[in-house]
Amino acid sequence: MTIDDVLASAEAITSWQEDLYKDLHRHPELSMQEQRTRTVIANKLAEFGYDVHEVGGGLVGVLANGPGKTVLFRADFDALPVKENTGLDYASTDTGTTIDGETTPVMHACGHDMHTAAALGAASLMANHRDAWSGTYIALFQPGEEIAAGAKAMVDDNLGGVIPKPDVALGQHVLGDLVSGHVGTAAGPVLSTAASLRITVFGKGSHGSMPHLGIDPVLLASNIVVRLQSIVAREIAPSDFGVVTVGSLHAGNSANVIPAEATLQVNVRAYDEDIRDHIIEAITRIVDSECEGMRAPQQPRIEVFDTYPLTDNDQAVYETVTKGLVRGLGEGRVETLNPQTASEDFSIIPDALGAPYCYWGFGAFTADQDVLPNHNPGFAPALQPTLTTGTQAAVAAALAFLGH
Amino acid sequence: MTIDDVLASAEAITSWQEDLYKDLHRHPELSMQEQRTRTVIANKLAEFGYDVHEVGGGLVGVLANGPGKTVLFRADFDALPVKENTGLDYASTDTGTTIDGETTPVMHACGHDMHTAAALGAASLMANHRDAWSGTYIALFQPGEEIAAGAKAMVDDNLGGVIPKPDVALGQHVLGDLVSGHVGTAAGPVLSTAASLRITVFGKGSHGSMPHLGIDPVLLASNIVVRLQSIVAREIAPSDFGVVTVGSLHAGNSANVIPAEATLQVNVRAYDEDIRDHIIEAITRIVDSECEGMRAPQQPRIEVFDTYPLTDNDQAVYETVTKGLVRGLGEGRVETLNPQTASEDFSIIPDALGAPYCYWGFGAFTADQDVLPNHNPGFAPALQPTLTTGTQAAVAAALAFLGH
Amino acid sequence: MTIDDVLASAEAITSWQEDLYKDLHRHPELSMQEQRTRTVIANKLAEFGYDVHEVGGGLVGVLANGPGKTVLFRADFDALPVKENTGLDYASTDTGTTIDGETTPVMHACGHDMHTAAALGAASLMANHRDAWSGTYIALFQPGEEIAAGAKAMVDDNLGGVIPKPDVALGQHVLGDLVSGHVGTAAGPVLSTAASLRITVFGKGSHGSMPHLGIDPVLLASNIVVRLQSIVAREIAPSDFGVVTVGSLHAGNSANVIPAEATLQVNVRAYDEDIRDHIIEAITRIVDSECEGMRAPQQPRIEVFDTYPLTDNDQAVYETVTKGLVRGLGEGRVETLNPQTASEDFSIIPDALGAPYCYWGFGAFTADQDVLPNHNPGFAPALQPTLTTGTQAAVAAALAFLGH
Amino acid sequence: MTIDDVLASAEAITSWQEDLYKDLHRHPELSMQEQRTRTVIANKLAEFGYDVHEVGGGLVGVLANGPGKTVLFRADFDALPVKENTGLDYASTDTGTTIDGETTPVMHACGHDMHTAAALGAASLMANHRDAWSGTYIALFQPGEEIAAGAKAMVDDNLGGVIPKPDVALGQHVLGDLVSGHVGTAAGPVLSTAASLRITVFGKGSHGSMPHLGIDPVLLASNIVVRLQSIVAREIAPSDFGVVTVGSLHAGNSANVIPAEATLQVNVRAYDEDIRDHIIEAITRIVDSECEGMRAPQQPRIEVFDTYPLTDNDQAVYETVTKGLVRGLGEGRVETLNPQTASEDFSIIPDALGAPYCYWGFGAFTADQDVLPNHNPGFAPALQPTLTTGTQAAVAAALAFLGH
Repeated sequence: MTIDDVLASAEAITSWQEDLYKDLHRHPELSMQEQRTRTVIANKLAEFGYDVHEVGGGLVGVLANGPGKTVLFRADFDALPVKENTGLDYASTDTGTTIDGETTPVMHACGHDMHTAAALGAASLMANHRDAWSGTYIALFQPGEEIAAGAKAMVDDNLGGVIPKPDVALGQHVLGDLVSGHVGTAAGPVLSTAASLRITVFGKGSHGSMPHLGIDPVLLASNIVVRLQSIVAREIAPSDFGVVTVGSLHAGNSANVIPAEATLQVNVRAYDEDIRDHIIEAITRIVDSECEGMRAPQQPRIEVFDTYPLTDNDQAVYETVTKGLVRGLGEGRVETLNPQTASEDFSIIPDALGAPYCYWGFGAFTADQDVLPNHNPGFAPALQPTLTTGTQAAVAAALAFLGH
Repeated sequence: MTIDDVLASAEAITSWQEDLYKDLHRHPELSMQEQRTRTVIANKLAEFGYDVHEVGGGLVGVLANGPGKTVLFRADFDALPVKENTGLDYASTDTGTTIDGETTPVMHACGHDMHTAAALGAASLMANHRDAWSGTYIALFQPGEEIAAGAKAMVDDNLGGVIPKPDVALGQHVLGDLVSGHVGTAAGPVLSTAASLRITVFGKGSHGSMPHLGIDPVLLASNIVVRLQSIVAREIAPSDFGVVTVGSLHAGNSANVIPAEATLQVNVRAYDEDIRDHIIEAITRIVDSECEGMRAPQQPRIEVFDTYPLTDNDQAVYETVTKGLVRGLGEGRVETLNPQTASEDFSIIPDALGAPYCYWGFGAFTADQDVLPNHNPGFAPALQPTLTTGTQAAVAAALAFLGH
Repeated sequence: MTIDDVLASAEAITSWQEDLYKDLHRHPELSMQEQRTRTVIANKLAEFGYDVHEVGGGLVGVLANGPGKTVLFRADFDALPVKENTGLDYASTDTGTTIDGETTPVMHACGHDMHTAAALGAASLMANHRDAWSGTYIALFQPGEEIAAGAKAMVDDNLGGVIPKPDVALGQHVLGDLVSGHVGTAAGPVLSTAASLRITVFGKGSHGSMPHLGIDPVLLASNIVVRLQSIVAREIAPSDFGVVTVGSLHAGNSANVIPAEATLQVNVRAYDEDIRDHIIEAITRIVDSECEGMRAPQQPRIEVFDTYPLTDNDQAVYETVTKGLVRGLGEGRVETLNPQTASEDFSIIPDALGAPYCYWGFGAFTADQDVLPNHNPGFAPALQPTLTTGTQAAVAAALAFLGH
Repeated sequence: MTIDDVLASAEAITSWQEDLYKDLHRHPELSMQEQRTRTVIANKLAEFGYDVHEVGGGLVGVLANGPGKTVLFRADFDALPVKENTGLDYASTDTGTTIDGETTPVMHACGHDMHTAAALGAASLMANHRDAWSGTYIALFQPGEEIAAGAKAMVDDNLGGVIPKPDVALGQHVLGDLVSGHVGTAAGPVLSTAASLRITVFGKGSHGSMPHLGIDPVLLASNIVVRLQSIVAREIAPSDFGVVTVGSLHAGNSANVIPAEATLQVNVRAYDEDIRDHIIEAITRIVDSECEGMRAPQQPRIEVFDTYPLTDNDQAVYETVTKGLVRGLGEGRVETLNPQTASEDFSIIPDALGAPYCYWGFGAFTADQDVLPNHNPGFAPALQPTLTTGTQAAVAAALAFLGH
């Protein structure tokens, strides 16, 4: 059986695969709380004949198929605290999940449901066509990517002791940057390094009509948000990549009460660890000085979390993967990926296991669709050819190392 | 029995009155959701022999005691969405009440529990000493003052048809401006006019690392908060009273997701309807222009709510009340009240009933305590002499109209 | 000769008085640089028969006229660094005067030319009608009011040794608040206390295209201006009077050069010395913290200047002046003056001489004119009845103390 | 005579060349006002035997030396409105030059004096060693580079009709990015595209104490500066190059006068015309919306000026130049130039003449010096080896096309 035959057989699994995708989309789960999703995946892997292990809240399915290389293919499966606004008939049915003591709607706004459905499809194809390859295929499903927790949790839970050491690791993400049906990759850095900060600033509560008796933390937090813009605008070199996003700001519950504190969540991106560190230092400096200028009665509380490494594709793995993708999908569908603004904790796994890696993107929207960024409440990738492309890309890349 | 004897008998009720105050403080209820509190009050009024009616979520107890004037004394009993931080052993036990779909802690941070306990004490004294006065005493307990809803709800629910027409209406508030044991009032305007605005501004959601694909509503809302400061600083005459407080700002749930919208709650105060209207116009103008400057894809949603009238004491009623307070408490404890920044919906009731009115303050903190503003999470009035003073002031003022 | 006759004779001097006013308006001089203006005044006073002395850059004309009280009437005569935009045919011809090393246009935008013309008119009437009064009349002309320098300069230059000790001191200002032809005064505080700050903040110069190699003082200064708005909006009680105006901001000369520093001039007003001091402390705190937040390489330079006292009319002098104005102008033209936002160094003179004082306003615009604030580039009072009213008011007030 | 001999002869001219450099540095002239500088250059070129023409405020010296290619080498010679702070004994003696009606100090803060001295040195070497090459060498000296006016002025003044058509054009800039003694260049885009905006916003003048009667243009301008930061921070992709610098902000002359207008000068940089246009559109949008939010009585005035093209080195010319530099200076002193943030109007000349071009940088500071950005008031390149390197680089690059 040729690689082309294996890829062509992806058509045969479309029916259950689309149902599974819609089911996952309808039932999103927040990071590190993905019980239902994990059960769905585990059942499928077992059905395909994989040797399944739960590790650190994730799953690994190992398919040993004779002598040869060991390839690890990773997908992630958590969702986001976003209120879905896609109008899909399989939209999220979540009516409120608790995170950090607050109730929030949940949505697969980053496409991890697509990653999971494609990876299960690939796992199925690899299992169905063992005559086309030899070696070991590891289907790894990771929780908690959105909070930089899942890859670390799996590594910390003895992932290295549970699976054979991989020769290469592979991973992919559905992206608006590419047209659905296309894939893209590059050697070197392709995803940014990132960190988040949780900041609480303190004022002094008062009656809404008595500002002079309080210290206004809503104004303090707003001053900080406005001032943070100057880090990217003035402190970072124009040719350097840097992002400072305040994704969340919460203060007060009532119009006529000046609250006593405000909380901000800030996300930082860079393509250089020094620049990331400079940005974090600048945020801290600005928060401190704004608190001083407002006579804040208490030091701000600043906590750094969700630290992501740079995703930096290995040259040799990249070359083999690209050859595989070109052979599998045709040259016209394989592009060079521009460095992405986003980050991934994927590389924590191969780095821990000592394996070189390659990460690629696959297109989310057809040419006639509006492109929405990942995390947007309306993010709804075209079901096809997206899903089949993700499936075939995973198989084509794996067979580049394992195929006869 | 002299008026002095009646007031002196306040000592005799201290025990149950303090217990009741602590019970109310421990069990605060949000505006227009005050079932438990209403039951506590209704039981007490019935126990004292009042003819009790539930009206618009509030209560009126009528005590007809022969010929003479009809005096209405009003207290309010709702609490606030504030997380208590007093350290009191009778602090709020509320662990989360739902308002507008969001869960919030609740606290008696404005002293309405003190108002209620004092008013029930006064109702008790009036009932116990009917020989000292003649006429009709109406003890009115109002819900929902904090959202400008309760007075209107009672009027709309046929308050005028349920009670005899009062000749005068009286009310009081516990205030940090006065020392505990003292009262203060004035003729003319003593409380501001107010309104609140609920503002939703719209951006475009995006991945936290892709600001250029979104429109950032957190920055937009922060720009608005910062810009609003210039209304009081630059648009209102320095000699005119004006307040613009953003009491609440909520946007996003996650560091790495740019949300699609942000909501602000804004409180406005003035001592002149024209200035209040100018401020509301200015807020609207600034919100609109900031949305334009950010390319907001949708018009902002701006809703005005919780509109409070000016509280403007009648000269003649003020004079009689002041005489009563001086006779009851002694001249040294009766002060001139400075115009307060706060607002009240109290005057909606006498205005609807066609009765002139007088409103006064009574002190919250002893001289050796730190004064905290109402609505502060640490707002905890000295139990005594505050409670007894509030009780005696109500009785002394009522007897100025009804006493022999 | 009656007081009415004296006042009526103001019509006879209109011709030279209007010419003199236009001449002064055409030739404005910056504070403490008023040579030409001083010569014009000195010549007139000498012509009227006054005993003239130059003191501290100003002038005093003493007219001893028998036994009786001594009344000092003060006028100021400096102009402002404003580019005139009145369209008057007697508009400023100044093409650039140097102040602090910078060249600036100059304009009588505060009406001191009107004060001087009216005061010379009054001096003329007092001299022409000595039979109508007895005592001593001192016509004092003060330089440098706009920079709070002139009154102090005269006091420091031995004013007290040059003139007889006055029993009362009087002064007036042309105001848009009153209709031309009317005057207004009040007992107690009528003008605010004030101070100004000159602030230089330091960044680090760079090429406009290399913000990361510099520290941007234009952004730093702008952040400060925006942040200062919160002092009046949040730190001062809504019922307290406070103003923070940044009247001047200068930084850089070129679009493509990031300059090394920026300078701001800030004006502060209050009706209470403690509030003024709080505002100055708050400005300093905000400037310091913003400099820190921007990594300013050097401490900001902050200099307080032009400090004005409160103008606080004496009750008894106010009552006599008011009687005089009512008798002279008619009751319908004498109003109660609302506390003004502006400040004056006038009171430094009576305070130094130990004399009680009264200050009043006279109207600038007729009912059919648009009212422009003092200091506006278009500020052009109606020539009449403004000028004659100012003349008559001065005489009527003086004669209330000196008239038979 | 070998190329090495020609370059080595640079030592012989050091004495007059250093004197000339110091003389130019001491006598900087603003863009398009460079009479003295032009005379100095013209005299030197004539002395060397060039055929000299004044064109559009600049100069061309043509040296025809037999058959062969025609090489144009361009230097610029204008200075900046910056107050020098180098402490050099040959610092600027300029005490104030008038630009746009304002007086400003002037300084060679961008190193054009170094360009001119090096280019004259190169012109001298080319003239002294005609036996080492054949063809035509054109030494072009351009005025007004800092305001994007000089290249255009020369082209518009018939430059093409005055000189023979060049086969290639060359130019260089002294840069802090490179160590003194080194040069750097690259194929493709090396300097950004740029534009500047002159913005006047209108408020309403008032007395400093009467903000409510005015509209504050100082606050309006400051709001704009703060808001502009979000263009680079939020609207431009993090991987795209963009700069928005407000280099100059002027408003008011006095602390106690609210002025009627404020002016800003803004500089924009990008590496893509579409991004530059987006930034200019965003600036316009933000200025408009801030004016609306402040009730500005008049539309802002926005003028785009000083538009610079992208500097985009030709691949073939780059390769020949690099070979020449490596042969002349040694491989260790020739680096790859990173794309610079700065811009140049240089390319207007070769584009108008139809000649391909290459532009390079030469180092400004020795390794033990602090690197200051161009345009900084302290910008003082090491006299040597900077000057000799610039001289040799020009000759080495020219001889790569003209040498035997």
